[in-house]
Amino acid sequence: MRLIFTTRGRMALKQISSNKCFGGLQKVFEHDSIELNCKMKFAIYLPPKAETGKCPALYWLSGLTCTEQNFISKSGYHQAASEHGLVIIAPDTSPRGCNIKGEDESWDFGTGAGFYVDATEDPWKTNYRMYSYVMKELPQLINTSFPVDPQKMSIFGHSMGGHGALICALKNPGKYKSVSAFAPICNPVLCPWGKKAFSGYLGTDQNKWKAVVYFIVGIRRPCRITKSQDLGLVGLYRSSPFHSLKMKKAYDATHLVKSYPGSQLDILIDQGKDDQFLSDGQLLPDNFIAACTEKKIPVVFRLQEGYDHSYYFIATFITDHIRHHAKYLNA
Amino acid sequence: MRLIFTTRGRMALKQISSNKCFGGLQKVFEHDSIELNCKMKFAIYLPPKAETGKCPALYWLSGLTCTEQNFISKSGYHQAASEHGLVIIAPDTSPRGCNIKGEDESWDFGTGAGFYVDATEDPWKTNYRMYSYVMKELPQLINTSFPVDPQKMSIFGHSMGGHGALICALKNPGKYKSVSAFAPICNPVLCPWGKKAFSGYLGTDQNKWKAVVYFIVGIRRPCRITKSQDLGLVGLYRSSPFHSLKMKKAYDATHLVKSYPGSQLDILIDQGKDDQFLSDGQLLPDNFIAACTEKKIPVVFRLQEGYDHSYYFIATFITDHIRHHAKYLNA
Repeated sequence: MRLIFTTRGRMALKQISSNKCFGGLQKVFEHDSIELNCKMKFAIYLPPKAETGKCPALYWLSGLTCTEQNFISKSGYHQAASEHGLVIIAPDTSPRGCNIKGEDESWDFGTGAGFYVDATEDPWKTNYRMYSYVMKELPQLINTSFPVDPQKMSIFGHSMGGHGALICALKNPGKYKSVSAFAPICNPVLCPWGKKAFSGYLGTDQNKWKAVVYFIVGIRRPCRITKSQDLGLVGLYRSSPFHSLKMKKAYDATHLVKSYPGSQLDILIDQGKDDQFLSDGQLLPDNFIAACTEKKIPVVFRLQEGYDHSYYFIATFITDHIRHHAKYLNA
Repeated sequence: MRLIFTTRGRMALKQISSNKCFGGLQKVFEHDSIELNCKMKFAIYLPPKAETGKCPALYWLSGLTCTEQNFISKSGYHQAASEHGLVIIAPDTSPRGCNIKGEDESWDFGTGAGFYVDATEDPWKTNYRMYSYVMKELPQLINTSFPVDPQKMSIFGHSMGGHGALICALKNPGKYKSVSAFAPICNPVLCPWGKKAFSGYLGTDQNKWKAVVYFIVGIRRPCRITKSQDLGLVGLYRSSPFHSLKMKKAYDATHLVKSYPGSQLDILIDQGKDDQFLSDGQLLPDNFIAACTEKKIPVVFRLQEGYDHSYYFIATFITDHIRHHAKYLNA
């Protein structure tokens, strides 16, 4: 089934639910995704301010096993979003119901575990294109269907979604005004969750997981610069007011930071000190911080005593994160 | 299986989970309930203040189909509880796993729908004693096991749990410092949910659903005054500093208000104007307000434009309710 365009040129959106919350509306919609070749649900909160004008858009990416429901029902974010006048969008975490063999066998691979990459391997590559979905298709749909300012968007997320938020921001300098994360998977090429997901979606050649290919945007055709070419070119285009650089392929935040060519990025990360996945070596924030320090990229990393990986941790600090984004989005 | 007492004289509690949230701890415990003859779970939030001293206790009663999880994961109450230093207890809504024929047949009767009454009818009367559980057994357990001040307790709830909170407060004048409710079932003897539940748990004689029997507490043996006796006695004991009155049997808030003998009670009710169960005639707040007005019992009733019956409605106003209770509990 393909997308249906309405008479007003919008992609067809089916409203699943609408609930008033803190003066605004928490809605859930379903649509046919081109990137993912399946029906997808996403949640969107429209603050009271959206009744009378365009608002900035803040995207939330959830963690393993989640749907669009977890964040909207458990994080307690509505009051801050209402007060700061932010539209907040929370997509599902993977394609669903694609009838791919093995899609429901693991809780950390396949359904509910899209890992925000564009799969290159069979049988996943037809549907599992969550990177392009959250970075391109979904914002286009939101920008044309809701009262949002397309120039003002930011991104944040939790765990696998924290990884997703970091790579979206790092691969697209300037696209997002700010980024933050709760307990993100910071260095997936070195942790069990990441190795499993990347092997399945991207193949077993680990160089492909972290190889950075620069794309220059702003010339007639986007042009690729590989590491084998003169990296001086990167510096040239980085300082050009007429061009921008995108980094493709790599999906590891720590490796992306090492090659980050971009404009200023203010990163906020909260991490529970008693998070079992921190001690299990799934998150590896130290590697990310070391890379940021080396590249002089400012990152505020708060290790929160006694907190774990749950939504109780997220709820405690969600207002801080929304304030962090509002500082840039409402500037 | 009976209750096991530990060496410190406490009933055995099994901790199911513990998560730090807003500086305090959100915990869930399981125990063997004497009243209900089954294992029961309850949630308890211990604010930071509970680390160093006793705090007031605020009981939350949930609605149909809920467990102890709904309120603690969806209402966003933790910040206000943390700031006001309140211990908040949220029990499950019914006995579970009692193997009573038909207990799982309806979503609005049996499991998840205890209705906060003490059943008198077979096969329910052995287990379905939620009124005594939430009003007596659970507070006793909480008072002996956690740092709470037994003299300072209040109660609130949602829908079926709003009904539960109102009847607990109205049947036990002076026991609860304050009461509030979200979209409570105010007059169950006249609504489909209430008629179904009361018929099943209390039998089909509707007089039993609303008959008020006063008990005088404070004399050698609690003494019963029925309506057939001189109601002047009620007035006598009501004004006595040495006695208090309890109202037994009746489980309908509107009828209880009409006979309320008690001390001052400040009631706060929030009701969504777009609540489908309001238009379906399940909640009937007008009847309750009329009875309060007639009896000059102060009730703040806020009809909230655009809000429905969901936790998005509760989350929006939960801080107001906790502030309402804190005013009395921290006085």
